[in-house]
Amino acid sequence: MERPHLDDELQALKNRLLNMAALVEERTHHAIQALVERRPEQAEKVVTGDRDVNELQIEIDDRCLKLLALQNPMASDLRLITAAMKINADLERIGDQAVNIAEKALDLIRLPLLKPLIDLPRMAELAERMTRDSLDAFVRRDPGLARSVLERDDEVDSLKDQIFRELLTYMMADPTTIERALALILVSRSLERIADHATNVAEDVIFMIEAKDVRHHHEEQ
Amino acid sequence: MERPHLDDELQALKNRLLNMAALVEERTHHAIQALVERRPEQAEKVVTGDRDVNELQIEIDDRCLKLLALQNPMASDLRLITAAMKINADLERIGDQAVNIAEKALDLIRLPLLKPLIDLPRMAELAERMTRDSLDAFVRRDPGLARSVLERDDEVDSLKDQIFRELLTYMMADPTTIERALALILVSRSLERIADHATNVAEDVIFMIEAKDVRHHHEEQ
Repeated sequence: MERPHLDDELQALKNRLLNMAALVEERTHHAIQALVERRPEQAEKVVTGDRDVNELQIEIDDRCLKLLALQNPMASDLRLITAAMKINADLERIGDQAVNIAEKALDLIRLPLLKPLIDLPRMAELAERMTRDSLDAFVRRDPGLARSVLERDDEVDSLKDQIFRELLTYMMADPTTIERALALILVSRSLERIADHATNVAEDVIFMIEAKDVRHHHEEQ
Repeated sequence: MERPHLDDELQALKNRLLNMAALVEERTHHAIQALVERRPEQAEKVVTGDRDVNELQIEIDDRCLKLLALQNPMASDLRLITAAMKINADLERIGDQAVNIAEKALDLIRLPLLKPLIDLPRMAELAERMTRDSLDAFVRRDPGLARSVLERDDEVDSLKDQIFRELLTYMMADPTTIERALALILVSRSLERIADHATNVAEDVIFMIEAKDVRHHHEEQ
């Protein structure tokens, strides 16, 4: 029996990571949509669907370990596989945040609407886009695209601060809003964490391509 | 020139990970201490000292890549090295949370004391202990100790909920406490994230030792 070519195996690995990214991005999108459109069944689906993400994570990790053990990959292939293991872990944690958002959505839907949500969906769109682009950068080996993900992290942070300040004003003016405002603040923190994970992925991609460590350098500028 | 033995290299890798764990545990401890004892200089030190963590992370990652590339490790050694790469990433993110806590401490120290902090230091102690034990479990290959870390995650969650409820009561009763109570809630979320990272480490340790994937199984019970 012929052993599959390493190139084919690496292509299959990339495809599975793209599936994983699409899955967690979709789940983030559904969680926010459930919150904005007040659809509890959809939030429930996000909470119960986490098993698919977990299974895919284990499968991808297993592929990586087998490639490392059986193919003895060198240099750039080795960096690709170790990057894939790290990216896989970040994607799984993005999935966890989608669950956290869906759980908060279930709490919030039971209470009267505090305000129409404008900035949270914008923040979610940014975080989802960063996730998608960091994976595209991985598959296409595009360091420019990966760097653009790092740059967008500031935009997410300033949206997060804006959301925080607005909700703080609500709480100060009317204590009956505190519980709902707090839940919305925690949703924005989950979105911030998703953007952080996308940033980690982008850093791994740049390291994989350029074999120099960009982690912590952009932070220090 | 003789190539160093793989066993020596693996021992050196374990020692560096222990150093990294001790460093981020100490930084978490200092950040909480700065908050509780209202010592701004100490909080500043935690914020500016993050560079040491980052340098150690890069060094450890580099060791792992070299071991994978040059030593062609098999089976359990391979799992040890890939576990080390993941554990390293989790430890670095614990360091990031120490910085987040120190930054919140700097905000809070400028404002009047809301209340003596009892539960937050307890939660911090738990999270620090989980970090230490997950690394000890890694070095000693002790799956029982790793499992005890997974079990303690519930304790952290219930402390987090207790802190949340108490601070919510403060905010409802007196809107002038909102800003400080919110900052303390976010500190408790940082501690929760540290405990989550320790849990991730413990799962990686069990997988490394038993070569079966415990991730997501204890969640589903």
